[in-house]
Amino acid sequence: MKKIAIVGASGYSGEELVRLLLSHPHVELTAVTSRQYAGQSLAQIFPKSASHPRAGALRFTEPKAELLAKQAEIVFLALPHGVATEFAVPLLELGCQVIDLSADFRLKEAATYKEFYAHDHPAPQLLAQAVYGLPEIYHKEIKTASLVACPGCYPTSVLLPTLPLLKAGLVKSTGIIADSLSGVSGAGRKIEPAYLFVECNESVRPYGVPKHRHLSEIEQELSLAAGAPVTIQFTPHLVPVSRGILTTLYVAPVKHFGDGKEMEELDKRISACYEAAYGSEPFVRLLDGKALPDTKNVVSTNVIEIAWRLDPRTGRLILMSAEDNLVKGASGQAVQCLNIMCGFPETAGLI
Amino acid sequence: MKKIAIVGASGYSGEELVRLLLSHPHVELTAVTSRQYAGQSLAQIFPKSASHPRAGALRFTEPKAELLAKQAEIVFLALPHGVATEFAVPLLELGCQVIDLSADFRLKEAATYKEFYAHDHPAPQLLAQAVYGLPEIYHKEIKTASLVACPGCYPTSVLLPTLPLLKAGLVKSTGIIADSLSGVSGAGRKIEPAYLFVECNESVRPYGVPKHRHLSEIEQELSLAAGAPVTIQFTPHLVPVSRGILTTLYVAPVKHFGDGKEMEELDKRISACYEAAYGSEPFVRLLDGKALPDTKNVVSTNVIEIAWRLDPRTGRLILMSAEDNLVKGASGQAVQCLNIMCGFPETAGLI
Amino acid sequence: MKKIAIVGASGYSGEELVRLLLSHPHVELTAVTSRQYAGQSLAQIFPKSASHPRAGALRFTEPKAELLAKQAEIVFLALPHGVATEFAVPLLELGCQVIDLSADFRLKEAATYKEFYAHDHPAPQLLAQAVYGLPEIYHKEIKTASLVACPGCYPTSVLLPTLPLLKAGLVKSTGIIADSLSGVSGAGRKIEPAYLFVECNESVRPYGVPKHRHLSEIEQELSLAAGAPVTIQFTPHLVPVSRGILTTLYVAPVKHFGDGKEMEELDKRISACYEAAYGSEPFVRLLDGKALPDTKNVVSTNVIEIAWRLDPRTGRLILMSAEDNLVKGASGQAVQCLNIMCGFPETAGLI
Amino acid sequence: MKKIAIVGASGYSGEELVRLLLSHPHVELTAVTSRQYAGQSLAQIFPKSASHPRAGALRFTEPKAELLAKQAEIVFLALPHGVATEFAVPLLELGCQVIDLSADFRLKEAATYKEFYAHDHPAPQLLAQAVYGLPEIYHKEIKTASLVACPGCYPTSVLLPTLPLLKAGLVKSTGIIADSLSGVSGAGRKIEPAYLFVECNESVRPYGVPKHRHLSEIEQELSLAAGAPVTIQFTPHLVPVSRGILTTLYVAPVKHFGDGKEMEELDKRISACYEAAYGSEPFVRLLDGKALPDTKNVVSTNVIEIAWRLDPRTGRLILMSAEDNLVKGASGQAVQCLNIMCGFPETAGLI
Repeated sequence: MKKIAIVGASGYSGEELVRLLLSHPHVELTAVTSRQYAGQSLAQIFPKSASHPRAGALRFTEPKAELLAKQAEIVFLALPHGVATEFAVPLLELGCQVIDLSADFRLKEAATYKEFYAHDHPAPQLLAQAVYGLPEIYHKEIKTASLVACPGCYPTSVLLPTLPLLKAGLVKSTGIIADSLSGVSGAGRKIEPAYLFVECNESVRPYGVPKHRHLSEIEQELSLAAGAPVTIQFTPHLVPVSRGILTTLYVAPVKHFGDGKEMEELDKRISACYEAAYGSEPFVRLLDGKALPDTKNVVSTNVIEIAWRLDPRTGRLILMSAEDNLVKGASGQAVQCLNIMCGFPETAGLI
Repeated sequence: MKKIAIVGASGYSGEELVRLLLSHPHVELTAVTSRQYAGQSLAQIFPKSASHPRAGALRFTEPKAELLAKQAEIVFLALPHGVATEFAVPLLELGCQVIDLSADFRLKEAATYKEFYAHDHPAPQLLAQAVYGLPEIYHKEIKTASLVACPGCYPTSVLLPTLPLLKAGLVKSTGIIADSLSGVSGAGRKIEPAYLFVECNESVRPYGVPKHRHLSEIEQELSLAAGAPVTIQFTPHLVPVSRGILTTLYVAPVKHFGDGKEMEELDKRISACYEAAYGSEPFVRLLDGKALPDTKNVVSTNVIEIAWRLDPRTGRLILMSAEDNLVKGASGQAVQCLNIMCGFPETAGLI
Repeated sequence: MKKIAIVGASGYSGEELVRLLLSHPHVELTAVTSRQYAGQSLAQIFPKSASHPRAGALRFTEPKAELLAKQAEIVFLALPHGVATEFAVPLLELGCQVIDLSADFRLKEAATYKEFYAHDHPAPQLLAQAVYGLPEIYHKEIKTASLVACPGCYPTSVLLPTLPLLKAGLVKSTGIIADSLSGVSGAGRKIEPAYLFVECNESVRPYGVPKHRHLSEIEQELSLAAGAPVTIQFTPHLVPVSRGILTTLYVAPVKHFGDGKEMEELDKRISACYEAAYGSEPFVRLLDGKALPDTKNVVSTNVIEIAWRLDPRTGRLILMSAEDNLVKGASGQAVQCLNIMCGFPETAGLI
Repeated sequence: MKKIAIVGASGYSGEELVRLLLSHPHVELTAVTSRQYAGQSLAQIFPKSASHPRAGALRFTEPKAELLAKQAEIVFLALPHGVATEFAVPLLELGCQVIDLSADFRLKEAATYKEFYAHDHPAPQLLAQAVYGLPEIYHKEIKTASLVACPGCYPTSVLLPTLPLLKAGLVKSTGIIADSLSGVSGAGRKIEPAYLFVECNESVRPYGVPKHRHLSEIEQELSLAAGAPVTIQFTPHLVPVSRGILTTLYVAPVKHFGDGKEMEELDKRISACYEAAYGSEPFVRLLDGKALPDTKNVVSTNVIEIAWRLDPRTGRLILMSAEDNLVKGASGQAVQCLNIMCGFPETAGLI
């Protein structure tokens, strides 16, 4: 049983982490911190977990790195960017492994961080050692990581359908467009007018056009896969569901497909490429037949659904993915990283 | 007071037409037909209109062209494609003007109709005389039309943001991508599993990928504006709202904008182009400042909101629109056409 | 054209008042106040009204009674309780008529106000002159009122089904239970965690059990109708819709109905009682046949739907009503009062 | 590992059973039947379960009792009433234990069945041996049952808050009112207009007033607890959530509570009564402090939340409960019964 702590457990990602780790068969949740809720039990703050045997006894505490390092071997950080570094630095020094859900360690370049997050990176010396926590791509690196930077929810939904095709040279690295629809929990537990029920219900709207922060990590990873700088178009939209991200991607196959036979052949190569990349991945569901992704089918699971269609009229390839933004897009993926780091079965606590 | 009839008033578009025409100041609704509801009053079938003084007395009848031609000068058809023609033909012969909400008369070419609707066009001789009922574009033609073919809900949301820029030569006619999100009423009152509450609620999903029927009229109108054949990418998605379409379009400006000054200049030209096209249009709301379209702001109105953003990173122009699929996307636009045909104020019964 | 001002127009009720009064045929909206939005136009703050010709020109101002008294003959107050009095007192002194949507003038007794609102009434001398703005009951008094206190949303939904039966002596004044379900806009535009989308969506919950503030006015009006003090049970619930209140009431008929014939007879008497009370009321829809109220049928209208069922198993009478909490439950009803005060058709601006 | 079959697995309850049993640690799901889906795999029909290792291999078959009796020791029936009996009779004869989710075996009296279900009971000889599957009440009987009749969703939400108080003589058995709000999955996967998204979204409505079928089992169990015939008032409402039932009950304490001290004392007795009944029950969460039930907190769990309030103004006791209609209200409770019958930990596969 690994001893685990969660710092900043009061947001939606933190709550989801609590839910997952309480039920995890190989983990003991020894500490959860929250300035706001210090002194109160998990059962009091998270009614959904209240029936778990440990939820009455485990209480939120003030976050203190030294104490946490005594209580836990691995610490999850579910904190705002900038704040996460304040805990990551001392915890790593004190010998803990850190799984960070913020944006602080996702980028290789401090300059990119500054461009997108509008302040200097608070600990650029750590960027080189951080591993991007996308298990289907960085399984080997995660295994030995001391600092894992979990991907953002949108990046997960964009990268998993795209990376294998880019790496295989099947699609061009230019002209990629990603159009994403997110449930409202993606905004976190922000008490702002824009996220009130009456403002979100019966509302569909784009936001953050044209330069959303998540572009920084998306383009970094796409560039690594393509072996050349990639710039993409990305438009997020808010839709009235609590959870779920649906991403539709428009990419251009390298090979022209002029007739039905060429199209069928290309379709087979794409299918083979995905099968090679994800055929044995427990959390990637490649849809076949006529099925298309639907967020309803992945809510509360760590699964991402992926489908694709070639369009002979436009010559484009359309990729579509669906995930739960709080699970595969955040806390579930973080637990998947934990399982890899600890040598547990990758699906432990997640199925 | 013009005498008006509605054929096939039992669907969502039909119900919306009833609501609008009952309150219209220059119109008398003299007949509504529905095989399913023949004999029952509007008040019995449409509770939302039940308090209108005429809703108790006006009863659905079986649809018969000869009778309708005696009861009304103008007839709205809210029928499935194929069926609409069965009424349009005799009604036109009997001297009625026809405003058709189906797809039957939107296309200039019978061959295109067959390609997209999978059967021969039932009255190709009428295609030449039909006017595409997009008032902001075809105001003059609608004024004297005997047969108006109201645009589909998606086409309205795609065409209004795009046509002025294409006509002005500001954007390229190639590589256009339209990504649309629709409320569930867009599917009509279909009693199918896919549209049950439990299947739509907390669900976000693409459908009809990659060749939706509405492409036929979209591409026809874009081609006319561009003066050359246009092929676009179009992906519809279903989101859990009752009404509303949000469309995000990706287009390429003809002129490259390399720096801030060029971008500012191009932005002004786009703004001027839209202002010239829509500045005095009562139902097009050009958003300025930081505002982006939101379906919530146009639901139950005949307004379409349009905003745009230039992206210096990708060189693309992003267009966004929001409308109510049952009003500006169907019945409201049909009434707008009626107003133009009859010389009423264009906003009569719509504000 | 009557000159009208709205004080505190930035909440949901205020926004709904703006929408209704902008389109009202006999009214000129001359001033709208909001500390928060002073200087900005209606079009900027309320996108849904932005296409109205006057929405661009009319700007929010700081609320000042003396200025308002010059700008308007009648002033609507859409303010929190306590604050409304601060404007009502000087406006009445300056000769304006006041239509107040807060709870400040609904109660006859200052002591009851203190019991339920937890502070002394700020202007008890005005309570005697205030008229309770329920037009179906107090039409005559509203006609000549200088100060109208519009009922709360829940009280409207409880009182309209109950008062005629109580007055006619058909039901007992004891043991009444009202169980109400409200959409989230009933809470106003409060920026609190409880009203975030993620907290309300897929959630159904009671609140304010067992002593909600609206009990004070409900019991006052029931007591007046019964001619004796009435105490009722009232339980509000929050359900994930933006608008609408559905109230189910359990009352006991005075007359026992032991068999089918007695039941039929009693049913007729109830029907006749409602018909006499509401048969010619434009905004009360008495449902017959098998229909039951549905908030969907009244949203954005000033209509209240009422149905009833006798239960021979329990001897009880079940009353059910549906209304839009922001229209018949607030701003629509306030405009209905305005129409009566000014001698306009009662439905002006409301159908 | 017990071998388990599910007959009629294609509805919402069936799907939930599949989900729960696939992940159950002591169970092997050996057969699932569905006429509609015979030949297709679980993965094809239930995307939410598609990632489970067995979902690809296990295929729906035609339901045949003799074959099922060879494949499984215990058979769940998730069939319409009337149809369930057709399988229960031969399966019991062939030596299987049967857990039935329909209404067929919930009632002790065939006459009551006929009154509420409008046809003769198809196997009245089995009624005496059937055990009502409410584990918190009939734990002992379930342990040795061969035929378990799982309670309906509404009855579970009404009975669990009420039975302990009735048994303890704390509340009167007369005058009980239950007001329930249900999510749309409660109607099953019925393809009817009333359950379309557009008809349920933004809609709140009562139905089945005043004599819902579930009254039969509710009153049977209340009568058994009270030791005398009980008749109650029950009003179900449909609200736009996928899952969840919220029930508010109005009951009368036997003891009058005239002042604060008496009220406090009675409150303690109620609390003690609930604590004695449910203090060690893993799936009953008694809320303390200011918390009230919220369906959001129990969705996808087998937990029922219960809270209560004494109202000194009316002398009544208000009971409130929240559950997931498909889990504690159906399939979860059925699995809880299975666990008891098999001697598994009661929470196996449910936490």
